[in-house]
Amino acid sequence: MRTLITNIAELTTNVPTGGDLTGTLNDAAVLIEGERIAWAGPAADAPAADEVVDVDGRAVIPGFVDSHSHLVFAGDRAAEFEARMAGQKYAAGGIRSTVSATRAATDDELRARLRGFLDEMLAQGTTTVEIKSGYGLSVTDEERLVRLAAEVTPEVTFLGAHVVPADYADRPDEYVDLVTGPMLDACAPHSKWIDVFCETGAFTVTQSRRVLESGIARGLVPRVHASQLGPGEGVRLAVELGAASIDHGTYLTDADVDALADSHTVLTLLPGVEFSTRQPYPNARRLIDAGVTVALACDTNPGSSFTSSMPFCIAVAVRDMGMTPAEAVWAATAGGAMALRRDDVGVIAPGARADLVLLDAPTRIHLAYRPGVPLVRTVWKDGRAIG
Amino acid sequence: MRTLITNIAELTTNVPTGGDLTGTLNDAAVLIEGERIAWAGPAADAPAADEVVDVDGRAVIPGFVDSHSHLVFAGDRAAEFEARMAGQKYAAGGIRSTVSATRAATDDELRARLRGFLDEMLAQGTTTVEIKSGYGLSVTDEERLVRLAAEVTPEVTFLGAHVVPADYADRPDEYVDLVTGPMLDACAPHSKWIDVFCETGAFTVTQSRRVLESGIARGLVPRVHASQLGPGEGVRLAVELGAASIDHGTYLTDADVDALADSHTVLTLLPGVEFSTRQPYPNARRLIDAGVTVALACDTNPGSSFTSSMPFCIAVAVRDMGMTPAEAVWAATAGGAMALRRDDVGVIAPGARADLVLLDAPTRIHLAYRPGVPLVRTVWKDGRAIG
Repeated sequence: MRTLITNIAELTTNVPTGGDLTGTLNDAAVLIEGERIAWAGPAADAPAADEVVDVDGRAVIPGFVDSHSHLVFAGDRAAEFEARMAGQKYAAGGIRSTVSATRAATDDELRARLRGFLDEMLAQGTTTVEIKSGYGLSVTDEERLVRLAAEVTPEVTFLGAHVVPADYADRPDEYVDLVTGPMLDACAPHSKWIDVFCETGAFTVTQSRRVLESGIARGLVPRVHASQLGPGEGVRLAVELGAASIDHGTYLTDADVDALADSHTVLTLLPGVEFSTRQPYPNARRLIDAGVTVALACDTNPGSSFTSSMPFCIAVAVRDMGMTPAEAVWAATAGGAMALRRDDVGVIAPGARADLVLLDAPTRIHLAYRPGVPLVRTVWKDGRAIG
Repeated sequence: MRTLITNIAELTTNVPTGGDLTGTLNDAAVLIEGERIAWAGPAADAPAADEVVDVDGRAVIPGFVDSHSHLVFAGDRAAEFEARMAGQKYAAGGIRSTVSATRAATDDELRARLRGFLDEMLAQGTTTVEIKSGYGLSVTDEERLVRLAAEVTPEVTFLGAHVVPADYADRPDEYVDLVTGPMLDACAPHSKWIDVFCETGAFTVTQSRRVLESGIARGLVPRVHASQLGPGEGVRLAVELGAASIDHGTYLTDADVDALADSHTVLTLLPGVEFSTRQPYPNARRLIDAGVTVALACDTNPGSSFTSSMPFCIAVAVRDMGMTPAEAVWAATAGGAMALRRDDVGVIAPGARADLVLLDAPTRIHLAYRPGVPLVRTVWKDGRAIG
């Protein structure tokens, strides 16, 4: 089955052409064959197809690659959010209340919730999603979370070192022994990535190094939560260990920026976190101009960012982080793919997965220009149209 | 036909109970009879019905009342938006480019666009919408815009005094003669409201007074765009003339706040404008604490705010204007109704129109807690379920 999507006013391919990183084509078409892209180019040159979809002058972009989420949990923290909006400060310790609710939930309850989030994300254009554990914090509970995540995505991250659980509060190094020992043994078979929250109130840089190195020794690739609540050494540790991404980066020093610019580590910005915690927005303009590769992700979680909307994150990144609409869309697609070291998503090119989003708008600018409006009209995931 | 909506975890009625302006009930039910609400109360006390809809512990709120929009126009200004995000300042003059596109469009083109916006808004929970003219700026074009708006809503506002058109640039008072003379004659039969943009770059306070008084003399009720781009005398003029609402209020003086608190004029805040123009957000906390009645609206227009999402406006009002989620939802429902002097919408009470929104969430807090996520699951408009 060959499906031609044609009459695309603006096609974002993310295949660089000249100085344009987004490889944007006007009056374009895309040919899907099975689960893959077979061809993309000017509509006038389109090859024959079994089926033609005329999108009537709308814009098409790659499916969003959301490289940072925490979707396996129970409960919510609406009351905590409301209190924070009334002036209470965000602290990492709130994670523990979600841990209690998650431990008490059955596998099927967690699965139902997880599938609900995935449906919600797909309807908003997200076709690839990374999922972290981190609300179990015991060997059996963390194993359960990575196992459930692995049922729905290959991009599974073991984040046993999300926060020190209450029963280890006065002996955090013993908790790190657990994470790097029996917990890693149980979780590594289901995981691709190893992650740690390197932050005051979570794990020190020494503890973080132990966690990441133990994962690397088991064949996992590191990614790091760092510099969310204040500046720290997490970014440089991540770069030193060849992490695929450091995530948050709300508070970066000049040395952090230089280290990132000289590395293959992506900086994943999470605008939903600053929005929902009223922290200052990091200056993406400064980062991009310095040569840092920036991705955007939602960080969907019940504490610090309960959005699952990549379009919302794009709008905030443009408004409050100084990104252009083109940069923000690139960061939410190709940037996310780089943060996951994937070359088969985040791009519309022959051989890539047929993951595309049709917008109810003539340009991708509208994702920022029309904030909050559900502009995702149709999503193709593995060549199958939804919506 | 009597339809009972039951198993509502949180019902926002906006019928004040004790100190609670939102009249919130838990474990509640609503009975719809035809186009009207017949009953609302504890689920345990629900009367018999022909049909029962179990909403499984979700939240229900009144349909949004969006009391400020400009939906009759052609074209868009995506390039202007992109340039503004790259640093160019917003100015009122950009309105003229939409005027040119609108004048060039046929009635049917304008109707198709208008109906597209209304569908988009309804899907996001907006069941009542006010629509302004203001992209015609000639007698025949303004008449056309209010006539087309009147086909879809009773809340039609004549805004011939939106900006001085290019052909009157050096003789603005002659344009005011036109607005208050032949243009008003042509538009008043289709309109309920008279409006003026009282701002540097648009109309002076003297010109604004002429516009509003000419409308009042024809039985129209005033509402005023003021203090969007800087402080001015528009607020006090609006209060003096008994305006139903002043809209924007980005820059308010203490005297403005005192005048509003002592009046029956609603202050309609438009968070989408500050979001999309990077202006400072007005402090709603200060206004509410001073006793001002605050409404929230989208101001959907192609220049300064192209969102049509009341949930987005609520999220921004909570994050950046200091409103509680309860206040923001009240402002987007009951507040909008007050700004339109309506008592049959914005409230879930016997006799009111059966305009309700079912959220895919257990509380209204989620509208701010989950920004950008399409949480509107089902909308009832005049008792008819959509979605």
